Amino acid sequence: MDRVDVVVVGAGYAGLSAARALRAAGRTVVVLEASDRAGGRALSARIDGGWAVDLGAQWISGGHTRLAALAQEYGAETYPSPSVGANLLVEGAVRRPFRGTRPPLSPLVLLVLGQAMWRIERLAARIDLAHPWTTPGADRLDAMTAATWLRRNLPERRARQLAEVMIGEELCVDVGSVSMLALLTTIRAAGGVEAGVTAETVTRLFVEGADGPALSMAAELGDALRLRSAVTSIQQGAQGVSVRGEFGAVAAGHVIVALPPVLAGRIAYDPPLPAARDHLTQRMPMGSVLKAFAVYDRPFWRDEFLTGQALNLHDPVPVTFDATRPGGPGCLGALVPGRAAHRLAALSPPERRGMIVGSLVRAFGHRARDPIGWHEKVWADDPFVRGGYGAFFPPGVLTTVGSGVRHPVGAIHWAGSETATEWSGYIEGAIRSGERAAAEISAH
Amino acid sequence: MDRVDVVVVGAGYAGLSAARALRAAGRTVVVLEASDRAGGRALSARIDGGWAVDLGAQWISGGHTRLAALAQEYGAETYPSPSVGANLLVEGAVRRPFRGTRPPLSPLVLLVLGQAMWRIERLAARIDLAHPWTTPGADRLDAMTAATWLRRNLPERRARQLAEVMIGEELCVDVGSVSMLALLTTIRAAGGVEAGVTAETVTRLFVEGADGPALSMAAELGDALRLRSAVTSIQQGAQGVSVRGEFGAVAAGHVIVALPPVLAGRIAYDPPLPAARDHLTQRMPMGSVLKAFAVYDRPFWRDEFLTGQALNLHDPVPVTFDATRPGGPGCLGALVPGRAAHRLAALSPPERRGMIVGSLVRAFGHRARDPIGWHEKVWADDPFVRGGYGAFFPPGVLTTVGSGVRHPVGAIHWAGSETATEWSGYIEGAIRSGERAAAEISAH
Repeated sequence: MDRVDVVVVGAGYAGLSAARALRAAGRTVVVLEASDRAGGRALSARIDGGWAVDLGAQWISGGHTRLAALAQEYGAETYPSPSVGANLLVEGAVRRPFRGTRPPLSPLVLLVLGQAMWRIERLAARIDLAHPWTTPGADRLDAMTAATWLRRNLPERRARQLAEVMIGEELCVDVGSVSMLALLTTIRAAGGVEAGVTAETVTRLFVEGADGPALSMAAELGDALRLRSAVTSIQQGAQGVSVRGEFGAVAAGHVIVALPPVLAGRIAYDPPLPAARDHLTQRMPMGSVLKAFAVYDRPFWRDEFLTGQALNLHDPVPVTFDATRPGGPGCLGALVPGRAAHRLAALSPPERRGMIVGSLVRAFGHRARDPIGWHEKVWADDPFVRGGYGAFFPPGVLTTVGSGVRHPVGAIHWAGSETATEWSGYIEGAIRSGERAAAEISAH
Repeated sequence: MDRVDVVVVGAGYAGLSAARALRAAGRTVVVLEASDRAGGRALSARIDGGWAVDLGAQWISGGHTRLAALAQEYGAETYPSPSVGANLLVEGAVRRPFRGTRPPLSPLVLLVLGQAMWRIERLAARIDLAHPWTTPGADRLDAMTAATWLRRNLPERRARQLAEVMIGEELCVDVGSVSMLALLTTIRAAGGVEAGVTAETVTRLFVEGADGPALSMAAELGDALRLRSAVTSIQQGAQGVSVRGEFGAVAAGHVIVALPPVLAGRIAYDPPLPAARDHLTQRMPMGSVLKAFAVYDRPFWRDEFLTGQALNLHDPVPVTFDATRPGGPGCLGALVPGRAAHRLAALSPPERRGMIVGSLVRAFGHRARDPIGWHEKVWADDPFVRGGYGAFFPPGVLTTVGSGVRHPVGAIHWAGSETATEWSGYIEGAIRSGERAAAEISAH
């Protein structure tokens, strides 16, 4: 049996960052990845001409200091998200352009929306990111869905729909499924409401795809990265851990499980995990997201001074954005979160494409009707990921078993964007979580 | 590789009933059970003198026709739940006796409680048990927790606490974690509010333990039941299925997975399960329950004309009951559901016992202080069950992926009490689900 200092399970940004930090500290490492690629929830495809398109995680924003450092180190270039022109608010057949983050709604609607945002910001400011379950009023906020809070605090229907679209885009989960306490925690972990709402305007994209730095880290690992090596069991004993699968077994002093909680729960542990940790893996499901890209010979929407960003209030595709690389062909991205993703995923690929193109046409006109290329990814279908962007907390979980999310179990350490206190759900959170798990072991 | 007509995964009441029905129809069957015993969530221990005590599922009530038939066939005798005398409502140091189901609260509190019960009954009556997601208003009821509904409809604090205790006892989940639509579905599946609330007074217990009929079915299976045979993967191909684990492999035309959804989700499927079915296994966690029994030389509470039933509004142990077998030593049962179960489970056994005995003393006086025997089971700790009584639906699940709960995936059929349309969460639901899955295969 191979023996190393640390086994890392999962070669997403979290696992790769953990392995990198451990090797830098002189530890021997093996990274076991179930799929045939590194990158996890970051995955860049190539469209005609070799232009990258991000089927998974995509944006880098100002607070993403660790991702920026990796990008610089590995020479991964970025460019500002296209944002010249007007955004669109689409309601059925009506489309209205707007600038910045102030959607074209009546002053009354904007007022109630602003008030609700202000209340959310104030509530989020009280969250202790390392211990959200200790927030004053945590039990009550965790016993309600975000939908309940919005119904109570945003009685105006259109304002509420807009808030639901924005929250869906942020979390990839319906407001009726997620705990209000968890929503507040996510908002605070991403720098507050303003940062979240305006994220698109201050963010950048990777020229060669957002999985670039991950692939560079994977390449550095060489033989220490083993693809197609699904871990099925982890045994813990006096001598450390033994990590097994059809690939065989690797022994180590410690293991870092850098998977979303539900996938970590599908590994068999011996001895079994403590009940509270097991229940956490039962109760932190993945969100659901479908990402699609329509390719056109050029970014025609810019002729009308549109950014390509649209918010659709009554549409299978609530959010679209411009994903055109500088100098590349026109590329419109569509983001479908939550139950809408499940509905579209159940369709045949041509039907699904038809539905999404229909949304693009409603927003950007008949020139959107015939894309010359099409790329899509239904993340819940990926057997090695099973959802996206990340896991979420349904009501009652954070305040019950939430404290187990980062707590090591003997020689088993937990990483993954879900375990990050800041930028949870982002690549940035994944990197920080991997480095934190590596530091736990180095501190031993 | 062994080959049979049908492999059944799991030897609880569901799996055993499925195997029994299939064999009666002339099919060859192998039942694979991960643990070293049959019975699943029914488990009877023996106290001094050989008296049975049910650490898991326990009661049989009027509507449980299939369980009654099995009990009769296998000669498992029952006796009425002890119900002579008064019940207790305990609030801190104050204990007040009451008869029947009308707790000793002020007329106003009883009025609002009665009104809320009436509203729940009326809402539950609209549920289509086979398709709860089609209920009028389903989306809205599924987007809120039961806690939200109770806060809105039971503003009186003590009435609400009482409702929370009763719901906790029924579902083993906090009202802040479960979808209101799911609560209504459970209530309807168990015959309505009245049936649920008064269940204890019309139910019976098994003299030799509630796992008796299960053990009889297991014995009938002989070599066809394989214990200590954890299934880790199910492969589906043109020839049927191959069910594998460390025990080896069994080939079959069909497989019935008779496990709670989360445990079914921990099996590796090839080809992978459809996304919606996978998400169901991610989003249907187990409730949590701790059951403890204090044994005394005699049922001393009967001297005071008490039933042994107590509802405790501010206590780690919300519900106690009399579990004394006819002629046997006195036995008080304590039921701790939801987050309270997690809290008590985290204590050392002596601390936990001290907490529970303290509750018994508050309800039944100093004679409860020194039990001569002690039996307990923390179901979340059981590595082959991981919770109890059953799985529950958090908000947003029933209306999104709930329709997958019984839907076969190729040659894979699903059983388990969670898949029952009636008496889901009870032994009765488990038996019916197993027979239903067997009938699906027989219909092929």
